[in-house]
Amino acid sequence: MEEKRARESHTIMNELVLPNDTNTFGNLMGGRLMYWMDIAAGMAAGKHCNAPSMTASVDNLSFKNPIKLGNIVHIEAKVSRAFNTSMEIFVKVWGEDLLHQYRYESNEAYFTFVALDPNGKPRPVPHLIPETPEEIRVYDGALRRRQLRLILAGKMKPDDANELKALFFAAEES
Amino acid sequence: MEEKRARESHTIMNELVLPNDTNTFGNLMGGRLMYWMDIAAGMAAGKHCNAPSMTASVDNLSFKNPIKLGNIVHIEAKVSRAFNTSMEIFVKVWGEDLLHQYRYESNEAYFTFVALDPNGKPRPVPHLIPETPEEIRVYDGALRRRQLRLILAGKMKPDDANELKALFFAAEES
Amino acid sequence: MEEKRARESHTIMNELVLPNDTNTFGNLMGGRLMYWMDIAAGMAAGKHCNAPSMTASVDNLSFKNPIKLGNIVHIEAKVSRAFNTSMEIFVKVWGEDLLHQYRYESNEAYFTFVALDPNGKPRPVPHLIPETPEEIRVYDGALRRRQLRLILAGKMKPDDANELKALFFAAEES
Amino acid sequence: MEEKRARESHTIMNELVLPNDTNTFGNLMGGRLMYWMDIAAGMAAGKHCNAPSMTASVDNLSFKNPIKLGNIVHIEAKVSRAFNTSMEIFVKVWGEDLLHQYRYESNEAYFTFVALDPNGKPRPVPHLIPETPEEIRVYDGALRRRQLRLILAGKMKPDDANELKALFFAAEES
Amino acid sequence: MEEKRARESHTIMNELVLPNDTNTFGNLMGGRLMYWMDIAAGMAAGKHCNAPSMTASVDNLSFKNPIKLGNIVHIEAKVSRAFNTSMEIFVKVWGEDLLHQYRYESNEAYFTFVALDPNGKPRPVPHLIPETPEEIRVYDGALRRRQLRLILAGKMKPDDANELKALFFAAEES
Amino acid sequence: MEEKRARESHTIMNELVLPNDTNTFGNLMGGRLMYWMDIAAGMAAGKHCNAPSMTASVDNLSFKNPIKLGNIVHIEAKVSRAFNTSMEIFVKVWGEDLLHQYRYESNEAYFTFVALDPNGKPRPVPHLIPETPEEIRVYDGALRRRQLRLILAGKMKPDDANELKALFFAAEES
Repeated sequence: MEEKRARESHTIMNELVLPNDTNTFGNLMGGRLMYWMDIAAGMAAGKHCNAPSMTASVDNLSFKNPIKLGNIVHIEAKVSRAFNTSMEIFVKVWGEDLLHQYRYESNEAYFTFVALDPNGKPRPVPHLIPETPEEIRVYDGALRRRQLRLILAGKMKPDDANELKALFFAAEES
Repeated sequence: MEEKRARESHTIMNELVLPNDTNTFGNLMGGRLMYWMDIAAGMAAGKHCNAPSMTASVDNLSFKNPIKLGNIVHIEAKVSRAFNTSMEIFVKVWGEDLLHQYRYESNEAYFTFVALDPNGKPRPVPHLIPETPEEIRVYDGALRRRQLRLILAGKMKPDDANELKALFFAAEES
Repeated sequence: MEEKRARESHTIMNELVLPNDTNTFGNLMGGRLMYWMDIAAGMAAGKHCNAPSMTASVDNLSFKNPIKLGNIVHIEAKVSRAFNTSMEIFVKVWGEDLLHQYRYESNEAYFTFVALDPNGKPRPVPHLIPETPEEIRVYDGALRRRQLRLILAGKMKPDDANELKALFFAAEES
Repeated sequence: MEEKRARESHTIMNELVLPNDTNTFGNLMGGRLMYWMDIAAGMAAGKHCNAPSMTASVDNLSFKNPIKLGNIVHIEAKVSRAFNTSMEIFVKVWGEDLLHQYRYESNEAYFTFVALDPNGKPRPVPHLIPETPEEIRVYDGALRRRQLRLILAGKMKPDDANELKALFFAAEES
Repeated sequence: MEEKRARESHTIMNELVLPNDTNTFGNLMGGRLMYWMDIAAGMAAGKHCNAPSMTASVDNLSFKNPIKLGNIVHIEAKVSRAFNTSMEIFVKVWGEDLLHQYRYESNEAYFTFVALDPNGKPRPVPHLIPETPEEIRVYDGALRRRQLRLILAGKMKPDDANELKALFFAAEES
Repeated sequence: MEEKRARESHTIMNELVLPNDTNTFGNLMGGRLMYWMDIAAGMAAGKHCNAPSMTASVDNLSFKNPIKLGNIVHIEAKVSRAFNTSMEIFVKVWGEDLLHQYRYESNEAYFTFVALDPNGKPRPVPHLIPETPEEIRVYDGALRRRQLRLILAGKMKPDDANELKALFFAAEES
């Protein structure tokens, strides 16, 4: 099966925060941002596997800074690691206030998408080759996040999550 | 500060899957569902704290069964635990195919919302009293999930996450 | 043909009033509310007949209290009576201001839906069994409302509307 | 207070039925049509009273022919009668299939709007002068419909609804 | 091939400017207006050719006066000339402030639509008969605008654009 | 007044064609694309002038290839030239079919935006420095397009449009 570079799936979205996207404080609502992040992640997944794909899970998504009405939502998505039939996509979000020339981090999350064949069943995806230090960093963390997802979904025993356990034992032993 | 029962925040939403909510397989897109879950969670948070509130984070969100075009999306949200200024809300989603009288689990996730005062600063929220076995179960797990969120956000050292570590050590020692 | 209890069709929707749903006074526009009420009524009809169905008519819909931007729209729908191929659904709407912990009646209306077979032709629906005093009250009024609908649609002569005439003659004779 | 001709409020809307407006049969959903009818009625009301106004009630709305995906929804609204602070607006809807050059009646309804002053309180509206036979016909029926609305809202006793009673007694005596 | 009068394609749309249609100045965004103009133009094209049709190009579109939140957008579209398989549609837009009884010109543009057969290939359309002075004026200018479109699209040499050149040479010689 | 490089305003948008964006052929509707192009152009304008801005005009917009349902709409916008208080933005659109790994040109257009001060009056914008051959090419053509806009808007006599006339005379003399 062919291999693909991480940067081949790089996807950029820019959206404008309109009144209906905001809560009573004039800030972008979390659910609206998740909607856009999911679309960006889906495009990155599609660029990697050239097949339809479907959201399987979303890892801890943490909102740092709210994005204001009229500001730009800048979203970047890139596949961080490919497994057998699934891909983990790293999505990062910035807000941008053009009037004050101020750009701020808003959010980041890992989405997992499953590639589907024409019958809607999972199908294999190309391997991913990380190249930049950032790509390698998120590639390396992907196994640990996958174990955490499987444990939380009840599909893996904590005892078998070697990558993840190391995180705690390292802390324990030091 | 006053206390509130978990069931006082119970919120039910029913939505219809329309064409624009679906991918090319005719299944509800993940991002659209997250949008609705966030609104349901926000209503439950509002019922608990009677103040404006804002999405702070979303825990591992795992899509089990896709919901088809024309089916009903049944969402239930209830505050699972209240911390100082934040609330964890447990959101559960079912799909419902009325023609075949078939109802299926689709998704569940934990959202965290922060209550805000009129200046947009965090403000205290009432304590939560869980009553049913299910309410007590999600209440008890909330500390562990909170430690995981803090570690993943880089705000807590793994070594200090006693509740969470127990999960792994129990597995280790057995 | 099978029978069904009224409560089996009970449907709850909660929606948030967003900026685009409001008029220049910041109140929910009537048409937007009717859109949601129709979807809630359609879900209740679907739960009763387990078949696709279509709006046939809407009875006098009267707006009591406007619902404000940021408030919750709480909608409840339940089949009130089943006829041969059609169902009358009673829809009730409340507004809810979480900050002031204030809930107020906003609207109520009777929708009529027709059940359809796969060719789009009307098909029989189960009888309805009302159980609570409220369910029995709306069940009893359904014949009168149906006669009124048929007269207004020019499909029944006023003289044949016995149920409805009683309303006026009772007043006349007393 | 100034008077206005019925035709001064005449409002025409044409909308295209898009995928998201349809049910699983590919027909325009009732609620979506009501949303457009309410906007058309509101514009006609605004043209008559030159003030903000709000939906107060909608009379029996009966769906004759469904409008198909891709067809045009042709809506016409005109104030049918002005009362003290409220206006009744007659709304008529046609579907139009351009490919088959076929235009069909779909719906008609009477909306009532209340004019508002800057504090949101009801304010007087100009009298209406009907001119065409059709305008005079709907103008004459407006009192009867108003009595029916008031009775159904519990604001008038059936015994006082002289205009409406005549409808039944005429039938009775003939 | 049959002929059709210009007025047979006359299409009127009225839309309300809602919060989500506006920029931070509370004015209708240009793109939202173009979206509505395109739908109005498409309806006019469909009325003329009674076939599906598709936007081929839009000529210089110039925004004169912004339309405010809560105002009415009044759009009129009419086929201005039919070519072999394409139609030019003249679209004119007014804003209307009902409270101040003030109507103002906002925009005008020429859209070109191509008629399509069931395979998505261009198909002939009826000739257009202009009747009013305004219809004749826009009919006469259509050739010139078409040459300009073809030159700008690189499909015609400036030297062959006789109609268009006359415009400059007339100026040159006078 | 400060100067800015063309590339500082470079804006990328990626959107997914959803069912509601398509006509009956399953192709992206022209108006929906114009809506997105206008938002992309507005963001590029905002990056250049760091002030609110408003669409003033759109030049010949020509649709080459329709974009299919489920495909990606890739939009790039960059300021091509700055005038006194206005900016011309070059917008280019591609369709992308991920399944067939096929990317195709769909559309290009020149938008003009006016920068606004807090009172909504035009305000000066920075000069633009084009750097790449493509940036220089569109920069050079901007004067000619501007003269054409002014003539078509009746604000310039054809005789004064030296840049534009050269286009025709060159052809004439050769």
